[in-house]
Amino acid sequence: MESVVATVVTLTQQPEPPSRQAFDNLKTLVGEDLAQVNEVILTRMHSRVPLISELAGHIIAAGGKRLRPLITLACACMCGYAGTRHVKLAACVEFIHTATLLHDDVVDKSDLRRGNATANAVWGNQASVLVGDFLFSRAFQLMVEDGSLKILDILSTASAVIAEGEVLQLLTTNDTATTEDAYLEVVSAKTAALFEAAARIGAVVADRPRAEEDALESFGRNLGIAFQLIDDVLDYSAHQATLGKTVGDDFREGKITLPIVLAFRRGNEAEREFWKRTLEAGDQTDDDLPQAITYLNAHKALADTIERARHYGAMARDTLGIFTDSEVKKTLIDVVDFCVDRAH
Amino acid sequence: MESVVATVVTLTQQPEPPSRQAFDNLKTLVGEDLAQVNEVILTRMHSRVPLISELAGHIIAAGGKRLRPLITLACACMCGYAGTRHVKLAACVEFIHTATLLHDDVVDKSDLRRGNATANAVWGNQASVLVGDFLFSRAFQLMVEDGSLKILDILSTASAVIAEGEVLQLLTTNDTATTEDAYLEVVSAKTAALFEAAARIGAVVADRPRAEEDALESFGRNLGIAFQLIDDVLDYSAHQATLGKTVGDDFREGKITLPIVLAFRRGNEAEREFWKRTLEAGDQTDDDLPQAITYLNAHKALADTIERARHYGAMARDTLGIFTDSEVKKTLIDVVDFCVDRAH
Repeated sequence: MESVVATVVTLTQQPEPPSRQAFDNLKTLVGEDLAQVNEVILTRMHSRVPLISELAGHIIAAGGKRLRPLITLACACMCGYAGTRHVKLAACVEFIHTATLLHDDVVDKSDLRRGNATANAVWGNQASVLVGDFLFSRAFQLMVEDGSLKILDILSTASAVIAEGEVLQLLTTNDTATTEDAYLEVVSAKTAALFEAAARIGAVVADRPRAEEDALESFGRNLGIAFQLIDDVLDYSAHQATLGKTVGDDFREGKITLPIVLAFRRGNEAEREFWKRTLEAGDQTDDDLPQAITYLNAHKALADTIERARHYGAMARDTLGIFTDSEVKKTLIDVVDFCVDRAH
Repeated sequence: MESVVATVVTLTQQPEPPSRQAFDNLKTLVGEDLAQVNEVILTRMHSRVPLISELAGHIIAAGGKRLRPLITLACACMCGYAGTRHVKLAACVEFIHTATLLHDDVVDKSDLRRGNATANAVWGNQASVLVGDFLFSRAFQLMVEDGSLKILDILSTASAVIAEGEVLQLLTTNDTATTEDAYLEVVSAKTAALFEAAARIGAVVADRPRAEEDALESFGRNLGIAFQLIDDVLDYSAHQATLGKTVGDDFREGKITLPIVLAFRRGNEAEREFWKRTLEAGDQTDDDLPQAITYLNAHKALADTIERARHYGAMARDTLGIFTDSEVKKTLIDVVDFCVDRAH
């Protein structure tokens, strides 16, 4: 019986939108490398303390798009790299990303991530903090095995900048006076720094000239900003709910993201009082999230955040101009669109 | 008026016990280097985000014996090192130590450290987690500047082991079945690993043969174990109270330290029920801490933990046998006694 139902579901499935196709194409193009990255991740997240392997497995194995390591793999490939170092380094990038996710969920007191219970909800804050530290240390052990001081420099600096960005975000939380520039500073540090490092490493392993390193750094930074802005939009989007994710986490946590920055400035005094009560004073009722979404839409704050993301996406695409045309370059460009079009 | 009182206090001051004198001697011997380490610490804990510098300053500048960086400086000196690399590396060791303290206080929900309010009590858990991450990243940036992959290997591995040890400790918390061996595994990882790395680095910068590296590694490991066992004793000691520190934190948190392991095994059934109620079930009244101390003393659990510490201290002293006699070697030996005699 069940197989019949399954068939019906398959028949009525919608074709994927073109940009989602681009992401799948990228995964196929560097498929063998990605399989090896997953192998390194599984092997190296192992610890003699079973709880560590279990908790790390929960967050690492359970999902995520592997977008950041994919960027490292694809950029190395686009730079003509034919060796194997990028595999271990892509795993480092994912470990650092996972460590920051574990600590973020503790800081944000989140219960859900990617539709699943967060590690802190299952194992408690204590284990999440410590396993984050473990994965972070493991990332550095992997870099040491690789042996490039330049890459150690890139990723240790990115890690410090990410921590600074997270603290900056903490300081703007509940502060409706946050400007668009101040918010961009948060995003550049907390999100874009790792995209930037992930992309740049592709040129470094391939031993490409400084101009290509710089181009990829810029590619990663702008893609990272676009990615985060779309994430901010998705947090208020009904589309998010269809993916099994919660809507309104940022609102409940009093986070001042770009849609809020825009709506606050475009609204009247009564609306500003609404934002101050709900986001600064943290005084919220069940009716407030729908009301917030109404205000965001009335001022095109979500649509214009997507427009801002398109701007950074366009910059990211243009950085790739200096590279010779190739299948992987074309796919990377399409992946920029995927990151922006997730909002629809 | 005040100056008269101050003079009286000075006149009636007790002479320092001999082992405390040893610690001060060590600080004098490597005094110039230590001043430079403090300089590096102050300069490099700085961030463009003021909250980070402020919080880091609270925990780093406010105190601590600087025992771990002192070990790096003294071991380098004993190995005849005449360069300057050990200064930055000693600062790395202190940064890693501070990052783990910040995360520990979050994990333990502590309000006091060294008689002062903890960073998490003042700025909240969120900032403590993130500033810990920042200091940890800074430590790696400093190591990259130093440029030794061997030292990066030693300290990234130590960091992973420390995180494993902290998780192991979490798993033994509230578990009165914890054995002395299991507890030693926790201590070796969470405390001794960094002492071990701090000491070994002294031989590495001086480019000494492997045998000396191994000797210093063993020196650090055994000193670290002795140090932690005495810390565990101090947590139940009236002497601790005179230092402005709280007594009974471990008891209230249900931590199974060596004094408890011994008292649990040496006690009768009624006593075991007491330990299970207070430490496993976490069901405690105000009378329980004095009762616990009575049991610990009745079974010589505190005195024998000090004896165990003496054993590791003796091992630490003997590891130094292969080094040529010198003022710094003699002082390091005396510092081992200082670490053990803190209990009196």
